[in-house]
Amino acid sequence: MRTIRSVSAMAAWRAALGREGVTVGLVPTMGALHAGHQSLIRKARLTSDAVVVSLFVNSRQFGPGEDFLRYPRPFQADAALCRAEGVDVLFEPSARAMYPPGFRTSVSVPDVARRWEGAKRPGHFDGVATVLTKLFVIARPDVAFFGQKDFQQMVIVRRLVEDLNLGVRLVVCPTVRERDGLALSSRNRRLTPAQRRAAPVLYEALQAGRTVILRGVRFGHLITKAMRQVIATEPRMKADYLAVCGPETLEPLARVTKTAVLLGAVRLGRVRLIDNLLVKL
Amino acid sequence: MRTIRSVSAMAAWRAALGREGVTVGLVPTMGALHAGHQSLIRKARLTSDAVVVSLFVNSRQFGPGEDFLRYPRPFQADAALCRAEGVDVLFEPSARAMYPPGFRTSVSVPDVARRWEGAKRPGHFDGVATVLTKLFVIARPDVAFFGQKDFQQMVIVRRLVEDLNLGVRLVVCPTVRERDGLALSSRNRRLTPAQRRAAPVLYEALQAGRTVILRGVRFGHLITKAMRQVIATEPRMKADYLAVCGPETLEPLARVTKTAVLLGAVRLGRVRLIDNLLVKL
Repeated sequence: MRTIRSVSAMAAWRAALGREGVTVGLVPTMGALHAGHQSLIRKARLTSDAVVVSLFVNSRQFGPGEDFLRYPRPFQADAALCRAEGVDVLFEPSARAMYPPGFRTSVSVPDVARRWEGAKRPGHFDGVATVLTKLFVIARPDVAFFGQKDFQQMVIVRRLVEDLNLGVRLVVCPTVRERDGLALSSRNRRLTPAQRRAAPVLYEALQAGRTVILRGVRFGHLITKAMRQVIATEPRMKADYLAVCGPETLEPLARVTKTAVLLGAVRLGRVRLIDNLLVKL
Repeated sequence: MRTIRSVSAMAAWRAALGREGVTVGLVPTMGALHAGHQSLIRKARLTSDAVVVSLFVNSRQFGPGEDFLRYPRPFQADAALCRAEGVDVLFEPSARAMYPPGFRTSVSVPDVARRWEGAKRPGHFDGVATVLTKLFVIARPDVAFFGQKDFQQMVIVRRLVEDLNLGVRLVVCPTVRERDGLALSSRNRRLTPAQRRAAPVLYEALQAGRTVILRGVRFGHLITKAMRQVIATEPRMKADYLAVCGPETLEPLARVTKTAVLLGAVRLGRVRLIDNLLVKL
Protein backbone atom coordinates (compact mmCIF):
# COMPACT_ATOMS: atom_id res chain seq x y z
CA MET A 1 0.00 0.00 0.00
CA ARG A 2 1.19 3.44 -0.89
CA THR A 3 0.49 6.45 1.31
CA ILE A 4 0.11 9.69 -0.63
CA ARG A 5 -0.02 13.02 1.17
CA SER A 6 0.31 15.49 -1.67
CA VAL A 7 -2.59 16.50 -3.88
CA SER A 8 -0.44 16.65 -6.99
CA ALA A 9 1.05 13.19 -6.35
CA MET A 10 -2.48 11.80 -5.97
CA ALA A 11 -3.59 13.39 -9.24
CA ALA A 12 -0.45 12.14 -11.00
CA TRP A 13 -1.00 8.58 -9.73
CA ARG A 14 -4.56 8.71 -11.05
CA ALA A 15 -3.56 10.14 -14.41
CA ALA A 16 -0.97 7.39 -14.91
CA LEU A 17 -3.59 4.70 -14.18
CA GLY A 18 -6.02 6.41 -16.50
CA ARG A 19 -3.64 5.94 -19.39
CA GLU A 20 -3.65 2.20 -18.61
CA GLY A 21 -7.45 1.98 -18.57
CA VAL A 22 -7.58 0.89 -14.95
CA THR A 23 -10.76 1.63 -12.95
CA VAL A 24 -10.41 3.36 -9.61
CA GLY A 25 -12.72 3.03 -6.61
CA LEU A 26 -12.64 5.67 -3.90
CA VAL A 27 -13.79 5.28 -0.30
CA PRO A 28 -13.82 8.79 1.20
CA THR A 29 -13.46 8.73 5.00
CA MET A 30 -12.57 10.92 7.95
CA GLY A 31 -10.59 8.02 9.44
CA ALA A 32 -11.44 6.28 12.72
CA LEU A 33 -12.28 3.37 10.49
CA HIS A 34 -14.68 0.71 11.70
CA ALA A 35 -16.46 -2.29 10.22
CA GLY A 36 -18.75 0.05 8.28
CA HIS A 37 -15.82 1.53 6.39
CA GLN A 38 -14.36 -1.95 6.07
CA SER A 39 -17.48 -3.12 4.26
CA LEU A 40 -17.12 -0.19 1.83
CA ILE A 41 -13.46 -1.03 1.21
CA ARG A 42 -14.31 -4.67 0.58
CA LYS A 43 -17.03 -3.70 -1.85
CA ALA A 44 -14.57 -1.40 -3.62
CA ARG A 45 -11.94 -4.14 -3.68
CA LEU A 46 -14.42 -6.50 -5.37
CA THR A 47 -15.54 -4.07 -8.05
CA SER A 48 -12.60 -1.78 -8.90
CA ASP A 49 -9.14 -2.49 -10.25
CA ALA A 50 -7.51 -0.09 -7.80
CA VAL A 51 -8.82 1.11 -4.45
CA VAL A 52 -8.10 4.50 -2.92
CA VAL A 53 -9.14 5.29 0.64
CA SER A 54 -9.01 8.97 1.50
CA LEU A 55 -8.53 9.88 5.12
CA PHE A 56 -9.14 13.51 5.91
CA VAL A 57 -10.81 15.00 8.96
CA ASN A 58 -12.50 17.81 7.08
CA SER A 59 -12.56 20.92 9.28
CA ARG A 60 -15.04 22.62 6.95
CA GLN A 61 -17.86 20.21 7.72
CA PHE A 62 -17.67 20.83 11.48
CA GLY A 63 -19.56 23.80 12.84
CA PRO A 64 -18.28 26.05 15.61
CA GLY A 65 -18.66 24.21 18.91
CA GLU A 66 -18.74 20.85 17.14
CA ASP A 67 -16.31 18.05 17.82
CA PHE A 68 -13.58 18.70 15.23
CA LEU A 69 -10.78 18.74 17.79
CA ARG A 70 -12.24 15.79 19.72
CA TYR A 71 -12.81 13.74 16.56
CA PRO A 72 -10.79 10.51 16.93
CA ARG A 73 -7.64 10.25 14.80
CA PRO A 74 -6.23 6.73 15.20
CA PHE A 75 -4.12 7.06 12.05
CA GLN A 76 -1.91 4.02 12.66
CA ALA A 77 -4.83 1.66 13.22
CA ASP A 78 -6.54 3.12 10.14
CA ALA A 79 -3.48 2.51 7.98
CA ALA A 80 -3.19 -1.05 9.32
CA LEU A 81 -6.84 -1.76 8.44
CA CYS A 82 -6.37 -0.38 4.93
CA ARG A 83 -3.23 -2.44 4.41
CA ALA A 84 -4.95 -5.60 5.63
CA GLU A 85 -7.86 -4.97 3.25
CA GLY A 86 -5.60 -4.64 0.22
CA VAL A 87 -6.07 -0.91 -0.33
CA ASP A 88 -3.76 0.39 -3.05
CA VAL A 89 -3.48 4.00 -1.99
CA LEU A 90 -4.14 5.69 1.31
CA PHE A 91 -4.64 9.36 0.43
CA GLU A 92 -4.00 11.32 3.60
CA PRO A 93 -3.60 15.00 2.74
CA SER A 94 -2.84 17.61 5.40
CA ALA A 95 -5.32 20.39 6.14
CA ARG A 96 -2.87 22.78 4.52
CA ALA A 97 -2.72 20.69 1.35
CA MET A 98 -6.50 20.69 1.05
CA TYR A 99 -7.14 24.25 2.26
CA PRO A 100 -4.06 26.35 1.61
CA PRO A 101 -3.98 29.99 2.74
CA GLY A 102 -6.42 32.03 0.66
CA PHE A 103 -8.77 29.11 0.05
CA ARG A 104 -12.35 30.30 -0.20
CA THR A 105 -14.33 28.45 -2.87
CA SER A 106 -17.47 26.72 -1.70
CA VAL A 107 -19.73 24.16 -3.33
CA SER A 108 -23.31 24.00 -2.16
CA VAL A 109 -26.42 22.00 -2.94
CA PRO A 110 -29.32 24.21 -1.86
CA ASP A 111 -32.67 22.90 -0.61
CA VAL A 112 -31.64 19.34 0.20
CA ALA A 113 -28.76 20.64 2.31
CA ARG A 114 -30.94 22.95 4.38
CA ARG A 115 -33.11 20.27 5.97
CA TRP A 116 -32.46 17.87 8.88
CA GLU A 117 -28.74 17.65 9.48
CA GLY A 118 -28.25 20.87 7.54
CA ALA A 119 -30.70 22.72 9.79
CA LYS A 120 -28.97 21.45 12.92
CA ARG A 121 -25.47 21.91 11.52
CA PRO A 122 -25.36 25.09 9.39
CA GLY A 123 -22.62 24.91 6.77
CA HIS A 124 -22.06 21.20 7.35
CA PHE A 125 -23.12 20.05 3.90
CA ASP A 126 -21.32 22.90 2.13
CA GLY A 127 -18.19 21.55 3.80
CA VAL A 128 -19.05 18.01 2.71
CA ALA A 129 -19.88 19.06 -0.86
CA THR A 130 -16.71 21.12 -1.17
CA VAL A 131 -14.35 18.45 0.09
CA LEU A 132 -15.98 15.71 -1.98
CA THR A 133 -15.80 17.84 -5.12
CA LYS A 134 -12.10 18.28 -4.44
CA LEU A 135 -11.55 14.58 -3.78
CA PHE A 136 -13.46 13.59 -6.91
CA VAL A 137 -11.48 16.06 -9.02
CA ILE A 138 -8.14 15.02 -7.53
CA ALA A 139 -8.59 11.23 -7.50
CA ARG A 140 -11.06 11.02 -10.40
CA PRO A 141 -12.60 7.75 -9.22
CA ASP A 142 -14.80 5.73 -11.53
CA VAL A 143 -16.82 4.64 -8.52
CA ALA A 144 -17.16 6.02 -4.99
CA PHE A 145 -18.53 4.10 -2.04
CA PHE A 146 -20.74 5.51 0.71
CA GLY A 147 -22.64 4.01 3.61
CA GLN A 148 -26.38 4.34 3.75
CA LYS A 149 -26.04 5.62 7.31
CA ASP A 150 -25.32 9.13 6.05
CA PHE A 151 -28.45 9.13 3.94
CA GLN A 152 -28.81 12.87 3.48
CA GLN A 153 -25.15 13.19 2.57
CA MET A 154 -25.66 10.52 -0.07
CA VAL A 155 -28.61 12.39 -1.59
CA ILE A 156 -26.49 15.53 -1.75
CA VAL A 157 -23.48 13.76 -3.23
CA ARG A 158 -25.69 12.21 -5.89
CA ARG A 159 -26.95 15.68 -6.87
CA LEU A 160 -23.48 17.17 -6.81
CA VAL A 161 -21.92 14.48 -8.97
CA GLU A 162 -24.64 14.78 -11.55
CA ASP A 163 -24.76 18.59 -11.55
CA LEU A 164 -21.00 19.08 -11.84
CA ASN A 165 -20.59 16.24 -14.36
CA LEU A 166 -18.05 14.54 -12.13
CA GLY A 167 -18.63 11.20 -13.82
CA VAL A 168 -18.43 9.19 -10.62
CA ARG A 169 -20.74 6.23 -10.10
CA LEU A 170 -21.98 6.10 -6.52
CA VAL A 171 -22.43 2.83 -4.72
CA VAL A 172 -24.38 2.94 -1.47
CA CYS A 173 -23.70 0.09 0.94
CA PRO A 174 -26.01 -1.03 3.76
CA THR A 175 -25.45 0.41 7.24
CA VAL A 176 -23.35 -1.93 9.36
CA ARG A 177 -24.75 -2.36 12.88
CA GLU A 178 -23.73 -3.74 16.23
CA ARG A 179 -25.62 -6.83 17.37
CA ASP A 180 -28.05 -4.66 19.31
CA GLY A 181 -28.83 -2.60 16.20
CA LEU A 182 -26.72 0.49 16.88
CA ALA A 183 -25.35 1.81 13.58
CA LEU A 184 -21.55 1.88 13.58
CA SER A 185 -20.13 5.37 13.91
CA SER A 186 -16.81 6.84 14.92
CA ARG A 187 -18.74 8.82 17.49
CA ASN A 188 -19.98 5.71 19.31
CA ARG A 189 -16.66 5.41 21.11
CA ARG A 190 -17.42 8.67 22.92
CA LEU A 191 -20.53 7.21 24.58
CA THR A 192 -20.37 6.38 28.30
CA PRO A 193 -21.33 2.77 29.13
CA ALA A 194 -24.81 3.92 30.18
CA GLN A 195 -25.26 5.98 27.01
CA ARG A 196 -24.00 3.05 24.97
CA ARG A 197 -26.70 0.84 26.49
CA ALA A 198 -29.31 3.46 25.63
CA ALA A 199 -28.07 4.08 22.06
CA PRO A 200 -29.91 1.25 20.23
CA VAL A 201 -33.22 2.92 21.08
CA LEU A 202 -32.76 5.14 18.01
CA TYR A 203 -32.78 2.13 15.71
CA GLU A 204 -35.69 0.64 17.67
CA ALA A 205 -37.65 3.83 17.03
CA LEU A 206 -36.97 3.63 13.29
CA GLN A 207 -38.00 -0.01 13.28
CA ALA A 208 -41.20 0.92 15.10
CA GLY A 209 -41.84 3.43 12.32
CA ARG A 210 -41.35 0.76 9.72
CA THR A 211 -43.61 -1.64 11.58
CA VAL A 212 -46.55 0.76 11.67
CA ILE A 213 -46.09 1.53 7.96
CA LEU A 214 -46.10 -2.15 7.10
CA ARG A 215 -49.23 -2.55 9.23
CA GLY A 216 -50.98 -0.03 7.01
CA VAL A 217 -50.42 3.35 8.67
CA ARG A 218 -49.77 5.92 5.93
CA PHE A 219 -49.97 9.34 7.56
CA GLY A 220 -46.53 10.84 8.21
CA HIS A 221 -47.50 12.39 11.51
CA LEU A 222 -48.73 9.07 12.90
CA ILE A 223 -45.56 7.29 11.86
CA THR A 224 -43.46 10.04 13.44
CA LYS A 225 -45.53 9.74 16.61
CA ALA A 226 -44.83 6.01 16.80
CA MET A 227 -41.10 6.72 16.53
CA ARG A 228 -41.24 9.49 19.14
CA GLN A 229 -42.96 7.20 21.60
CA VAL A 230 -40.07 4.77 21.46
CA ILE A 231 -37.47 7.53 21.96
CA ALA A 232 -39.49 8.75 24.94
CA THR A 233 -38.93 5.41 26.71
CA GLU A 234 -35.24 6.29 27.08
CA PRO A 235 -34.80 9.32 29.37
CA ARG A 236 -31.13 9.78 28.39
CA MET A 237 -32.04 10.24 24.74
CA LYS A 238 -33.26 13.56 23.29
CA ALA A 239 -34.61 13.57 19.74
CA ASP A 240 -33.25 16.23 17.40
CA TYR A 241 -35.63 15.13 14.67
CA LEU A 242 -37.59 12.08 13.55
CA ALA A 243 -39.06 12.28 10.08
CA VAL A 244 -40.76 10.38 7.30
CA CYS A 245 -39.44 11.65 3.98
CA GLY A 246 -39.33 11.09 0.27
CA PRO A 247 -36.00 9.37 -0.40
CA GLU A 248 -34.94 11.75 -3.19
CA THR A 249 -36.02 15.19 -2.03
CA LEU A 250 -35.95 14.43 1.73
CA GLU A 251 -39.14 16.44 2.04
CA PRO A 252 -41.45 15.25 4.81
CA LEU A 253 -44.25 13.08 3.50
CA ALA A 254 -47.78 13.87 4.61
CA ARG A 255 -48.67 10.42 3.37
CA VAL A 256 -46.51 7.42 2.43
CA THR A 257 -47.41 6.06 -1.00
CA LYS A 258 -44.40 4.15 -2.27
CA THR A 259 -40.96 4.47 -0.76
CA ALA A 260 -40.09 6.44 2.34
CA VAL A 261 -36.95 6.99 4.33
CA LEU A 262 -37.24 7.28 8.08
CA LEU A 263 -34.64 9.71 9.35
CA GLY A 264 -33.64 10.09 12.98
CA ALA A 265 -31.12 12.13 14.94
CA VAL A 266 -30.78 12.07 18.70
CA ARG A 267 -28.50 13.33 21.42
CA LEU A 268 -27.09 11.25 24.23
CA GLY A 269 -25.31 13.69 26.48
CA ARG A 270 -22.88 15.52 24.20
CA VAL A 271 -22.86 12.83 21.51
CA ARG A 272 -25.15 13.15 18.52
CA LEU A 273 -26.22 10.02 16.67
CA ILE A 274 -28.04 9.65 13.36
CA ASP A 275 -29.61 6.68 11.65
CA ASN A 276 -32.18 5.91 8.95
CA LEU A 277 -34.27 3.16 7.48
CA LEU A 278 -35.60 2.82 3.97
CA VAL A 279 -39.12 1.42 3.69
CA LYS A 280 -40.58 0.18 0.43
CA LEU A 281 -44.26 -0.63 0.14
CA MET B 1 -14.02 20.84 -36.99
CA ARG B 2 -16.30 18.69 -34.93
CA THR B 3 -19.38 20.09 -33.22
CA ILE B 4 -20.26 18.32 -29.98
CA ARG B 5 -23.54 18.99 -28.23
CA SER B 6 -23.65 16.27 -25.61
CA VAL B 7 -21.78 16.48 -22.34
CA SER B 8 -20.91 12.80 -22.35
CA ALA B 9 -19.57 12.93 -25.92
CA MET B 10 -17.39 15.89 -24.94
CA ALA B 11 -16.01 14.03 -21.92
CA ALA B 12 -15.42 10.91 -24.02
CA TRP B 13 -13.55 12.90 -26.69
CA ARG B 14 -11.34 14.37 -23.97
CA ALA B 15 -10.71 11.02 -22.29
CA ALA B 16 -9.62 9.47 -25.58
CA LEU B 17 -7.15 12.30 -26.20
CA GLY B 18 -5.88 11.97 -22.64
CA ARG B 19 -4.82 8.42 -23.32
CA GLU B 20 -2.74 9.74 -26.26
CA GLY B 21 -1.02 12.39 -24.13
CA VAL B 22 -2.43 15.25 -26.20
CA THR B 23 -2.80 18.67 -24.51
CA VAL B 24 -6.13 20.45 -24.75
CA GLY B 25 -6.73 24.20 -24.72
CA LEU B 26 -10.19 25.52 -23.92
CA VAL B 27 -11.61 28.91 -24.86
CA PRO B 28 -14.88 29.27 -22.93
CA THR B 29 -17.28 31.71 -24.62
CA MET B 30 -20.91 32.73 -24.72
CA GLY B 31 -20.68 33.03 -28.51
CA ALA B 32 -21.13 36.29 -30.43
CA LEU B 33 -17.44 35.87 -31.17
CA HIS B 34 -15.34 38.91 -32.05
CA ALA B 35 -11.67 39.69 -32.54
CA GLY B 36 -11.14 39.40 -28.78
CA HIS B 37 -12.24 35.77 -28.81
CA GLN B 38 -10.31 35.27 -32.01
CA SER B 39 -7.10 36.34 -30.27
CA LEU B 40 -7.78 33.78 -27.52
CA ILE B 41 -8.38 31.04 -30.07
CA ARG B 42 -5.16 31.92 -31.90
CA LYS B 43 -3.20 31.86 -28.67
CA ALA B 44 -4.76 28.47 -27.87
CA ARG B 45 -3.96 27.19 -31.35
CA LEU B 46 -0.30 28.16 -30.88
CA THR B 47 0.13 26.55 -27.48
CA SER B 48 -2.15 23.49 -27.33
CA ASP B 49 -2.31 20.32 -29.40
CA ALA B 50 -6.09 20.45 -29.61
CA VAL B 51 -8.37 23.46 -29.23
CA VAL B 52 -11.90 23.35 -27.84
CA VAL B 53 -14.15 26.41 -28.00
CA SER B 54 -17.21 26.16 -25.81
CA LEU B 55 -20.21 28.20 -26.82
CA PHE B 56 -22.90 28.43 -24.18
CA VAL B 57 -25.04 31.42 -23.27
CA ASN B 58 -25.11 30.67 -19.56
CA SER B 59 -28.50 31.62 -18.15
CA ARG B 60 -27.21 31.32 -14.59
CA GLN B 61 -24.87 34.28 -14.88
CA PHE B 62 -27.63 36.66 -15.97
CA GLY B 63 -29.67 38.30 -13.24
CA PRO B 64 -33.41 38.91 -13.45
CA GLY B 65 -33.96 41.88 -15.75
CA GLU B 66 -30.59 41.38 -17.41
CA ASP B 67 -30.11 40.79 -21.11
CA PHE B 68 -30.15 36.97 -21.33
CA LEU B 69 -32.91 36.88 -23.94
CA ARG B 70 -31.46 39.81 -25.87
CA TYR B 71 -27.92 38.40 -25.78
CA PRO B 72 -26.80 37.94 -29.41
CA ARG B 73 -26.67 34.36 -30.71
CA PRO B 74 -25.12 34.40 -34.20
CA PHE B 75 -24.32 30.68 -34.05
CA GLN B 76 -23.54 30.23 -37.75
CA ALA B 77 -21.06 33.08 -37.87
CA ASP B 78 -19.48 31.78 -34.67
CA ALA B 79 -19.05 28.30 -36.12
CA ALA B 80 -17.56 29.78 -39.31
CA LEU B 81 -15.03 31.77 -37.29
CA CYS B 82 -14.04 28.70 -35.28
CA ARG B 83 -13.66 26.63 -38.40
CA ALA B 84 -11.52 29.29 -40.07
CA GLU B 85 -9.30 29.47 -37.00
CA GLY B 86 -8.65 25.73 -36.97
CA VAL B 87 -10.65 24.90 -33.86
CA ASP B 88 -10.85 21.15 -33.32
CA VAL B 89 -14.07 20.97 -31.34
CA LEU B 90 -16.93 23.41 -30.97
CA PHE B 91 -18.67 22.38 -27.77
CA GLU B 92 -22.17 23.77 -27.96
CA PRO B 93 -24.33 22.15 -25.28
CA SER B 94 -28.00 22.96 -24.89
CA ALA B 95 -29.30 24.59 -21.72
CA ARG B 96 -30.97 21.31 -20.90
CA ALA B 97 -27.71 19.39 -21.27
CA MET B 98 -25.93 21.74 -18.87
CA TYR B 99 -28.80 22.29 -16.43
CA PRO B 100 -31.14 19.32 -16.58
CA PRO B 101 -34.33 19.34 -14.49
CA GLY B 102 -33.43 19.12 -10.80
CA PHE B 103 -30.10 20.88 -11.22
CA ARG B 104 -29.24 22.88 -8.12
CA THR B 105 -25.55 22.72 -7.23
CA SER B 106 -23.77 26.05 -6.99
CA VAL B 107 -20.09 26.94 -6.83
CA SER B 108 -19.19 30.24 -5.23
CA VAL B 109 -16.05 32.21 -4.47
CA PRO B 110 -17.00 34.49 -1.58
CA ASP B 111 -15.45 37.90 -0.94
CA VAL B 112 -13.95 38.52 -4.38
CA ALA B 113 -17.31 37.78 -6.00
CA ARG B 114 -19.22 40.23 -3.81
CA ARG B 115 -17.47 43.41 -5.01
CA TRP B 116 -17.86 45.50 -8.17
CA GLU B 117 -19.63 43.44 -10.80
CA GLY B 118 -20.85 41.08 -8.08
CA ALA B 119 -22.43 43.95 -6.15
CA LYS B 120 -24.18 45.22 -9.28
CA ARG B 121 -25.11 41.77 -10.53
CA PRO B 122 -26.02 39.54 -7.56
CA GLY B 123 -25.48 35.87 -8.34
CA HIS B 124 -23.55 36.65 -11.53
CA PHE B 125 -20.24 35.19 -10.39
CA ASP B 126 -21.86 32.13 -8.81
CA GLY B 127 -23.26 31.45 -12.27
CA VAL B 128 -19.85 32.00 -13.84
CA ALA B 129 -18.06 29.83 -11.26
CA THR B 130 -20.61 27.04 -11.60
CA VAL B 131 -20.55 26.86 -15.39
CA LEU B 132 -16.76 27.07 -15.55
CA THR B 133 -16.39 24.30 -12.98
CA LYS B 134 -18.65 22.18 -15.15
CA LEU B 135 -16.77 23.03 -18.35
CA PHE B 136 -13.41 22.32 -16.71
CA VAL B 137 -14.65 18.99 -15.38
CA ILE B 138 -16.23 17.98 -18.68
CA ALA B 139 -13.49 19.07 -21.10
CA ARG B 140 -10.57 18.78 -18.65
CA PRO B 141 -8.42 21.31 -20.50
CA ASP B 142 -4.73 21.59 -19.71
CA VAL B 143 -4.95 25.31 -20.40
CA ALA B 144 -7.87 27.74 -20.55
CA PHE B 145 -7.78 31.15 -22.18
CA PHE B 146 -9.45 34.29 -20.88
CA GLY B 147 -9.38 37.93 -21.89
CA GLN B 148 -8.12 40.52 -19.45
CA LYS B 149 -11.28 42.52 -20.08
CA ASP B 150 -13.21 40.43 -17.56
CA PHE B 151 -10.62 41.10 -14.89
CA GLN B 152 -12.73 40.22 -11.87
CA GLN B 153 -13.93 37.04 -13.51
CA MET B 154 -10.32 36.09 -14.11
CA VAL B 155 -9.43 36.62 -10.44
CA ILE B 156 -12.36 34.42 -9.45
CA VAL B 157 -11.52 31.69 -11.94
CA ARG B 158 -7.94 31.65 -10.71
CA ARG B 159 -9.18 31.11 -7.14
CA LEU B 160 -11.69 28.47 -8.19
CA VAL B 161 -9.22 26.45 -10.23
CA GLU B 162 -6.72 26.40 -7.41
CA ASP B 163 -9.26 25.71 -4.65
CA LEU B 164 -10.99 22.86 -6.46
CA ASN B 165 -7.73 21.38 -7.77
CA LEU B 166 -8.97 21.56 -11.32
CA GLY B 167 -5.43 21.46 -12.70
CA VAL B 168 -6.10 23.99 -15.45
CA ARG B 169 -3.42 26.53 -16.32
CA LEU B 170 -4.98 29.92 -17.02
CA VAL B 171 -3.66 32.18 -19.74
CA VAL B 172 -4.87 35.76 -19.70
CA CYS B 173 -4.66 37.60 -23.01
CA PRO B 174 -4.64 41.38 -23.48
CA THR B 175 -7.94 43.13 -24.10
CA VAL B 176 -8.52 43.68 -27.80
CA ARG B 177 -9.76 47.20 -28.59
CA GLU B 178 -11.27 49.16 -31.43
CA ARG B 179 -9.06 51.85 -32.91
CA ASP B 180 -10.66 54.44 -30.65
CA GLY B 181 -9.86 52.37 -27.55
CA LEU B 182 -13.27 50.78 -26.89
CA ALA B 183 -12.77 47.26 -25.56
CA LEU B 184 -14.40 44.66 -27.79
CA SER B 185 -17.56 43.20 -26.31
CA SER B 186 -20.55 41.35 -27.64
CA ARG B 187 -22.63 44.09 -26.05
CA ASN B 188 -21.10 46.86 -28.19
CA ARG B 189 -23.40 45.93 -31.07
CA ARG B 190 -26.35 47.02 -28.98
CA LEU B 191 -25.07 50.61 -28.76
CA THR B 192 -26.81 53.28 -30.86
CA PRO B 193 -24.46 55.27 -33.13
CA ALA B 194 -24.40 58.14 -30.64
CA GLN B 195 -23.71 55.78 -27.74
CA ARG B 196 -21.02 54.10 -29.77
CA ARG B 197 -19.30 57.44 -30.28
CA ALA B 198 -19.47 58.09 -26.54
CA ALA B 199 -18.28 54.61 -25.52
CA PRO B 200 -14.47 55.15 -25.71
CA VAL B 201 -14.73 57.66 -22.85
CA LEU B 202 -14.59 54.73 -20.41
CA TYR B 203 -11.15 53.75 -21.65
CA GLU B 204 -10.10 57.40 -21.68
CA ALA B 205 -11.07 57.63 -18.03
CA LEU B 206 -8.96 54.59 -17.17
CA GLN B 207 -6.05 56.04 -19.12
CA ALA B 208 -6.44 59.31 -17.21
CA GLY B 209 -6.21 57.28 -14.00
CA ARG B 210 -3.03 55.66 -15.21
CA THR B 211 -1.57 59.01 -16.23
CA VAL B 212 -2.04 60.58 -12.81
CA ILE B 213 -0.51 57.50 -11.15
CA LEU B 214 2.51 57.66 -13.41
CA ARG B 215 2.81 61.38 -12.61
CA GLY B 216 3.16 60.50 -8.93
CA VAL B 217 -0.36 60.59 -7.53
CA ARG B 218 -0.72 57.68 -5.08
CA PHE B 219 -3.95 58.25 -3.16
CA GLY B 220 -6.78 56.06 -4.41
CA HIS B 221 -9.45 58.72 -3.98
CA LEU B 222 -7.50 61.23 -6.10
CA ILE B 223 -6.99 58.70 -8.88
CA THR B 224 -10.68 57.82 -8.79
CA LYS B 225 -11.53 61.52 -8.96
CA ALA B 226 -9.41 61.94 -12.09
CA MET B 227 -11.29 59.06 -13.73
CA ARG B 228 -14.69 60.42 -12.66
CA GLN B 229 -13.90 63.78 -14.18
CA VAL B 230 -13.38 62.21 -17.58
CA ILE B 231 -16.62 60.24 -17.39
CA ALA B 232 -18.42 63.48 -16.44
CA THR B 233 -17.43 65.01 -19.78
CA GLU B 234 -19.80 62.57 -21.53
CA PRO B 235 -23.42 63.25 -20.52
CA ARG B 236 -24.68 59.98 -22.06
CA MET B 237 -22.42 57.94 -19.79
CA LYS B 238 -23.29 57.05 -16.17
CA ALA B 239 -20.58 55.48 -14.02
CA ASP B 240 -21.55 52.36 -12.08
CA TYR B 241 -18.16 52.29 -10.39
CA LEU B 242 -14.60 53.47 -10.96
CA ALA B 243 -12.03 51.99 -8.60
CA VAL B 244 -8.34 51.58 -7.88
CA CYS B 245 -7.76 48.09 -6.52
CA GLY B 246 -5.18 45.52 -5.59
CA PRO B 247 -5.03 43.14 -8.55
CA GLU B 248 -5.39 39.95 -6.49
CA THR B 249 -7.97 40.80 -3.84
CA LEU B 250 -9.74 43.56 -5.83
CA GLU B 251 -9.99 45.53 -2.59
CA PRO B 252 -9.87 49.30 -3.09
CA LEU B 253 -6.42 50.73 -2.44
CA ALA B 254 -6.17 53.76 -0.17
CA ARG B 255 -2.70 54.22 -1.60
CA VAL B 256 -1.00 52.69 -4.66
CA THR B 257 2.37 51.16 -3.78
CA LYS B 258 3.18 48.60 -6.47
CA THR B 259 0.61 47.25 -8.88
CA ALA B 260 -2.97 48.44 -9.19
CA VAL B 261 -5.86 47.59 -11.42
CA LEU B 262 -8.20 50.37 -12.46
CA LEU B 263 -11.70 48.99 -12.80
CA GLY B 264 -14.55 50.77 -14.49
CA ALA B 265 -18.18 50.03 -15.30
CA VAL B 266 -20.54 52.46 -16.98
CA ARG B 267 -23.99 52.55 -18.47
CA LEU B 268 -24.86 53.99 -21.86
CA GLY B 269 -28.61 53.86 -22.06
CA ARG B 270 -29.49 50.22 -21.38
CA VAL B 271 -26.06 48.89 -22.27
CA ARG B 272 -23.52 48.26 -19.53
CA LEU B 273 -19.82 48.34 -20.41
CA ILE B 274 -16.82 47.31 -18.31
CA ASP B 275 -13.12 47.81 -18.83
CA ASN B 276 -9.89 47.81 -16.82
CA LEU B 277 -6.27 48.76 -16.94
CA LEU B 278 -3.36 47.27 -15.04
CA VAL B 279 -0.78 49.77 -13.83
CA LYS B 280 2.65 48.72 -12.58
CA LEU B 281 4.91 51.22 -10.84
